[in-house]
Amino acid sequence: MSLANIKDSDVDIVIGALHSDLTSFLNEWRPIFSRFHLIIVKDPDLKEELRIPEGFNLDVYSKSHIDRVVGSSSSMVFTGYSCRYFGFLVSRKKYIVSIDDDCIPAKDSKGFLIDAVAQHLVNLATPATPFFFNTLYDPYREGADFVRGYPFSLRSGVACALSCGLWLNLADLDAPTQALKPEQRNSRYVDAVMTIPSRAMMPLSGINIAFDREAVGPALLPALKLAGEGNLRWETMEDIWSGMCVKVVCDHLGLGVKSGLPYVWRKDRGSAVESLKKEWEGVKLMEEIAPFFQLVRLPQTAATTEDCIIEMAETVKQQLGPSNPVFTRAAEAMVEWVKLWKAVGSGSSPL
Amino acid sequence: MSLANIKDSDVDIVIGALHSDLTSFLNEWRPIFSRFHLIIVKDPDLKEELRIPEGFNLDVYSKSHIDRVVGSSSSMVFTGYSCRYFGFLVSRKKYIVSIDDDCIPAKDSKGFLIDAVAQHLVNLATPATPFFFNTLYDPYREGADFVRGYPFSLRSGVACALSCGLWLNLADLDAPTQALKPEQRNSRYVDAVMTIPSRAMMPLSGINIAFDREAVGPALLPALKLAGEGNLRWETMEDIWSGMCVKVVCDHLGLGVKSGLPYVWRKDRGSAVESLKKEWEGVKLMEEIAPFFQLVRLPQTAATTEDCIIEMAETVKQQLGPSNPVFTRAAEAMVEWVKLWKAVGSGSSPL
Repeated sequence: MSLANIKDSDVDIVIGALHSDLTSFLNEWRPIFSRFHLIIVKDPDLKEELRIPEGFNLDVYSKSHIDRVVGSSSSMVFTGYSCRYFGFLVSRKKYIVSIDDDCIPAKDSKGFLIDAVAQHLVNLATPATPFFFNTLYDPYREGADFVRGYPFSLRSGVACALSCGLWLNLADLDAPTQALKPEQRNSRYVDAVMTIPSRAMMPLSGINIAFDREAVGPALLPALKLAGEGNLRWETMEDIWSGMCVKVVCDHLGLGVKSGLPYVWRKDRGSAVESLKKEWEGVKLMEEIAPFFQLVRLPQTAATTEDCIIEMAETVKQQLGPSNPVFTRAAEAMVEWVKLWKAVGSGSSPL
Repeated sequence: MSLANIKDSDVDIVIGALHSDLTSFLNEWRPIFSRFHLIIVKDPDLKEELRIPEGFNLDVYSKSHIDRVVGSSSSMVFTGYSCRYFGFLVSRKKYIVSIDDDCIPAKDSKGFLIDAVAQHLVNLATPATPFFFNTLYDPYREGADFVRGYPFSLRSGVACALSCGLWLNLADLDAPTQALKPEQRNSRYVDAVMTIPSRAMMPLSGINIAFDREAVGPALLPALKLAGEGNLRWETMEDIWSGMCVKVVCDHLGLGVKSGLPYVWRKDRGSAVESLKKEWEGVKLMEEIAPFFQLVRLPQTAATTEDCIIEMAETVKQQLGPSNPVFTRAAEAMVEWVKLWKAVGSGSSPL
């Protein structure tokens, strides 16, 4: 694993604090996180004071910071899981790693603690191969290579902009599936990283991700807010929407998205049956969202992630807006987010 | 693993015999193969008599059978690895499993013998999900499911027509890579099966595959014969070409292709450096082949695999033919193959 190109100071670890007591979470991650700068964003709906153990290099942002930066007139909403996006906005680092506060480090099949940050950075530092599928997975991994028949001209790959990690124990299911299979746990450790092929869509989960903020930061945005959204993962969709945006941007700009390692260990939280009673809109919305993002194409003139998001917002408004006001609000939030991104001075360099 | 729908009598195991002594190969596979009917096709270039141990239910085909069925005037060539395709042609079963004669059963990460046939049949019997990528891999596997955000309308999947297995020990590298890394061995057991997304291309390797002969049999064809083709895997391309054909057919007809488990153990054979001296054309050809198959689209009127292959052959002739006669010959072989397939009475039922 070569990380020669990534310095610790190039990385921010962003944690959305949906719980006030981060003591055990941060202590579990201490061996992995302590080398890095942390950005902790407190859910504006959370009343209690945060409890944070000593010994970390971190900045904490709360409602007052958010109000100061975003203003009260904005259509941006940073409550619940969306609070983490404020951390993406105020970071000045090239790379972001973001992990949910109900996850702790997992162990690999040999029982060794997994350094999820190191694996994410390896994923981002090595090329992605979106234009042809390598059947032996990540060809840049030690002991691996390109399989016979893989075109040589594609073997140098493209820059990887997003690394999507996975989860042991509690998988990231939706509320209906979770309610149907309350005892199901994910115990399969699949020792692979792969590039999601160009033009293939996947359900990005914000639980355990890392990305190149300079390249695609403006695409990781809290745009789709469900009416009955709660602070349980299966009650949310903002990360799925944002994942579709990033994938479309990456496909358009010739960047790569990887999925697979690293795993984190997700602890149980909440009752899916209670969530189901809230009539989760997610199931219905995905039937419109998936085909939309599969078919949307961006104009050649869209040369930066900001351009791409503005273009997409307009298309969302036109094509999805008429069917549900949730989409119109999402489109407005996308435009607002790009304005904010530029105003806060986080603008990405042109690719 | 539910195989309720597949009877042993629905399956032919096809072995291309490139070596005369199959004793140790078949004895290693005995616990797995003995329930099934075997079709062994002897490489027409092989002079020695085949040595086959007792206790199998099998038919052997050799040069005289091939000449009788194909005739001497044909542009079809069944020498070397291409001999296996004759087995696909004469089979009358719904499913084919085909494994190279230099592979033996592998062991999983716990040391248990892998039943590659059973895993292939599970892959074919359970649906594929080519229209959206499931980040937790095969959603139909025990303990797995669809991840939050996966559209419910796509969760029933489509029929799986092709299962591509992998290799432990000797990976399926091309001659240059193999020559560069003679000591490299694949020791990573990745415990996953996934659907290759629609419109993504991959390098199919014929070493360890299974397919639904009734659905896509006519697309598994020996069309691309290299000038310096030998009987070492890295000197051939016919399976890569045929894999591209099947993938395009599956994408067009709404069928799925899976890759991953099962693994087989590939034993060493031959010197890659000697192969390199033959000036392997594969590297150069793939630069034209990959973009061609990525962009080729079939007309709505192509409703069967046979139709699709005929359409593709015409496009190959027009678009690739002018650059290299090897492509014109491949196009002719594709047309010839479909004629043969119909004549031999193996025609697929309309989908």
